[in-house]
Amino acid sequence: MRKVVLFAASSLDGFIARPDGAIDWLFQDGDYGFSEFMETVDSVVLGRKTYEVAKALGDDSLTAGEHWIVSRNPDKHAGGKARFGTLDQVGDWLRSSVSEKAVWLIGGGELTAAFLDRGWLNEIVLAIHPRLLGMGIGISPNLLNDAVLTYRKHKVFDNGLIQVWYDVAR
Amino acid sequence: MRKVVLFAASSLDGFIARPDGAIDWLFQDGDYGFSEFMETVDSVVLGRKTYEVAKALGDDSLTAGEHWIVSRNPDKHAGGKARFGTLDQVGDWLRSSVSEKAVWLIGGGELTAAFLDRGWLNEIVLAIHPRLLGMGIGISPNLLNDAVLTYRKHKVFDNGLIQVWYDVAR
Repeated sequence: MRKVVLFAASSLDGFIARPDGAIDWLFQDGDYGFSEFMETVDSVVLGRKTYEVAKALGDDSLTAGEHWIVSRNPDKHAGGKARFGTLDQVGDWLRSSVSEKAVWLIGGGELTAAFLDRGWLNEIVLAIHPRLLGMGIGISPNLLNDAVLTYRKHKVFDNGLIQVWYDVAR
Repeated sequence: MRKVVLFAASSLDGFIARPDGAIDWLFQDGDYGFSEFMETVDSVVLGRKTYEVAKALGDDSLTAGEHWIVSRNPDKHAGGKARFGTLDQVGDWLRSSVSEKAVWLIGGGELTAAFLDRGWLNEIVLAIHPRLLGMGIGISPNLLNDAVLTYRKHKVFDNGLIQVWYDVAR
């Protein structure tokens, strides 16, 4: 089974995006460990809605390398460079794939919750922004069970961003 | 105007309680700076629903000292030891009251959002628990505007709880 890591950013009140998916409030002035993290992964998994948002923002890095876009109707989206699959297909791949490197779970919240409830998520690296949004898309909404985490380390940036590493308890 | 500080606990995904108000998931084994914080305040403000939860848990400390329970219908609740008032009445009191000490805003989320939107909240001390709940009552749901915060300091406890101090930008 591949090791899966959620590397994401949130507001202090736990939102990864505004209700419409907007991430205008994220610090964009730095790397915040992203390059270093990217050296530890060779594949990405993201939800179809998150993919659409990233594509609209002109970010085509999400279709580079070994990647999966999770959709309930993968056939509807097939044809381009991106590989679409159901959650079950991604689960099969996670079990059969072999690599020293980890898989980057990008999100969004719905997919993260599905990964947590299936026990597929091993680590969380969260960049907590010093801001309350009041509403938006949660990190992992409507979990069936609490996800209990083990703190590993953290880093505080000059702008008040706190990045925290957790292991997901099994 | 009195200085108001939110001293609260949340899950990593920004919930202060489960949907029904339950706080069974909070670390109960330590003080986590509470005694020290209490020496800096002489008054508390909390919402009526939060008051009912605390009362049901047998916590009558919330009716000790100078305090306000915020309700849309304060007359309905009057009669006991506790002082009920509307948000406007609490605002008048915050403006006219004089003290070297701060006011503890306990919450819940709805009241915290109202304080933030009115510019009444000066500081936030949040004890972020290493757990994702997936659903619940937010720190400050349905804000009219983002609350921009300035990081001041933090403390990490052995159990993975991260307590962070923020100033609320004016």
